[in-house]
Amino acid sequence: MPTPFQFHLDATDGQARAGRFTTPHGELLTPVFAPVGTQATVKALTPAQLEEIGASLVLANTYHLYLRPGDELVAQMGGLHEFMGWPRPILTDSGGYQVFSLAERRQIDEDGVTFRSHIDGSSHHFTPEKVTAIQENLGADIIMALDECAEPYNREYNQLATARTSAWAERCLKAQKRDDQALFGIVQGGVFPDLRAQSAEFIASLGFPGHAIGGLSVGETKEEMHQMLKVVLPVLPEGKPRYLMGVGTPEDLVNAVKQGIDIFDCVLPTRLGRNKAVFLRGGERLNLRNVAFADDPNPIDEACKCYTCRHFSRAYLRHLIVAKEMLAATLLSIHNLHTLIQLATDMRQAIIKGRFEQFAQPWTGS
Amino acid sequence: MPTPFQFHLDATDGQARAGRFTTPHGELLTPVFAPVGTQATVKALTPAQLEEIGASLVLANTYHLYLRPGDELVAQMGGLHEFMGWPRPILTDSGGYQVFSLAERRQIDEDGVTFRSHIDGSSHHFTPEKVTAIQENLGADIIMALDECAEPYNREYNQLATARTSAWAERCLKAQKRDDQALFGIVQGGVFPDLRAQSAEFIASLGFPGHAIGGLSVGETKEEMHQMLKVVLPVLPEGKPRYLMGVGTPEDLVNAVKQGIDIFDCVLPTRLGRNKAVFLRGGERLNLRNVAFADDPNPIDEACKCYTCRHFSRAYLRHLIVAKEMLAATLLSIHNLHTLIQLATDMRQAIIKGRFEQFAQPWTGS
Repeated sequence: MPTPFQFHLDATDGQARAGRFTTPHGELLTPVFAPVGTQATVKALTPAQLEEIGASLVLANTYHLYLRPGDELVAQMGGLHEFMGWPRPILTDSGGYQVFSLAERRQIDEDGVTFRSHIDGSSHHFTPEKVTAIQENLGADIIMALDECAEPYNREYNQLATARTSAWAERCLKAQKRDDQALFGIVQGGVFPDLRAQSAEFIASLGFPGHAIGGLSVGETKEEMHQMLKVVLPVLPEGKPRYLMGVGTPEDLVNAVKQGIDIFDCVLPTRLGRNKAVFLRGGERLNLRNVAFADDPNPIDEACKCYTCRHFSRAYLRHLIVAKEMLAATLLSIHNLHTLIQLATDMRQAIIKGRFEQFAQPWTGS
Repeated sequence: MPTPFQFHLDATDGQARAGRFTTPHGELLTPVFAPVGTQATVKALTPAQLEEIGASLVLANTYHLYLRPGDELVAQMGGLHEFMGWPRPILTDSGGYQVFSLAERRQIDEDGVTFRSHIDGSSHHFTPEKVTAIQENLGADIIMALDECAEPYNREYNQLATARTSAWAERCLKAQKRDDQALFGIVQGGVFPDLRAQSAEFIASLGFPGHAIGGLSVGETKEEMHQMLKVVLPVLPEGKPRYLMGVGTPEDLVNAVKQGIDIFDCVLPTRLGRNKAVFLRGGERLNLRNVAFADDPNPIDEACKCYTCRHFSRAYLRHLIVAKEMLAATLLSIHNLHTLIQLATDMRQAIIKGRFEQFAQPWTGS
């Protein structure tokens, strides 16, 4: 059948790629960074503010929305785009990561995973078929296969989890009924190059329209993360988008794009914003609660074009923080998201101009 | 000296007035409702969102800003407009009301009031001269004389407080140094018609560019509030703006405009918004946490043109409330403020068209 999903490479520079991924809710220009809207809202921001920041893709969490307000309610309200007032592309994860990190008393077997809700302790069962159906109710443009995210250094567990992730990927593909959602397969394997390579080979063989790399940025070192990308990326087909889940910092983004990653998401910019910290362009962080900023008339970053930096001083932002005003979280989140989204845009331009190495040098040190 | 403050009546209809008050930061079309930005921020909203709502005047609290971040810091940062990123007119209160309602262990004498900060217990002294100087540091367009807000039913205390408010009004006028701020005098007198009339006559005699009525909506009945307006308003000069402090509900606004009030402020719309309640157009309130709204696909108010009603269902808003998302406070505050600001705009149009009685009938019942 004809697919609404086309991935076109506008340019490459070394392994770095400037792509274009068409979805039913518009085109994603890659590299792209997706703000996280866990509960169908990017915390403290309206969709209008997200558009002004330049966000094109938003991630929402299947585990959270399944528990509250329920995927069937979201479907009844017209799907996630309509429900949360976000007309552009949305990606939902499979819920796997949250089940393994948030839920209580989880029990995993070949069929799936039984867990208790972190909200009310109620018991639930996720299978590949179930999370596919939930994501079809939610109606995102990009949906994810159920995977098992193991502790990165436990080889035995990673062998088992990678095998289950492979079997579940096949079952998700079979379970998919809607043809207007791109289902991505997920590569696991911890910090073990042979497991990562096996996982990537198997997942790539299944014919997904895109691939994700999971189980990174979960406790391993930066060097190990880069090493795993070096193993996995050459195995994944060039003509399909590649998504590095849950990453990350400005430095992580640049290093991963250098290796050929196209899509990112991370709670970091909004979580830091709620915790009073902001990115500077080079990746340094400031904690604006610091008394040194009490009478600082400058914006967070002189060169930044975000709403916050165009209108407010560090002194005002610190005042909002000290006075415990909600507006602090909003203004800091705007700045942090803008910084990562602008970085992705700048990387895209550098790739198109064939100057990515030069652009990346301050971060990659090479 | 030439004053930047001109008050022109575009139209009157009965006692209701459609006016135009010029200030250094732009013209106020009256009747006007001012959102409250206690700590130099209207809680949960950016200035851009306030502009989209149609806000023209914002109130900030002298007591709060004096304690934190300090009026001298605000002056050093270029004044309140620059500090909080609000380029339109600002009004600051005198701090009197907060000292009498918030501060601990206050001691009042003829000179002024000594109190302890509600934040850290530190001791402070407010005099008419001091609050005028603080408000000159803050730099609002409209500033208020120091007044004493007594319990409404205590006649003896109201006699004393009204006398002090009169003396302090004169001292504020003498203390004023800047000529780009309109200093308003405040009428007190509790629920006692003779005290109200005496206070209004004295304050009106001092030549302020505008007058406020304080000590209402503080525990008295609606009937008593209307009665006090009937006593006070005929005493105040027609050619100057009249401000009813701390009011109020849609019903209060309509009834007060009917009697000749031009300016209002109230925390109610934003406080209700943070407490999950919304106004409907007729003044009824809904608590959106109610389970009845869990699957309600309609906006808060079908006829409302605010950002919230144009984009979000009651079901989504209830989800945000139940999930404890900050966006709920933002979206509900937008709707509630829009409702009162639109009501003020609609009243102005009705006055200009000579149809105010008809417009007001559903609220005033007359």
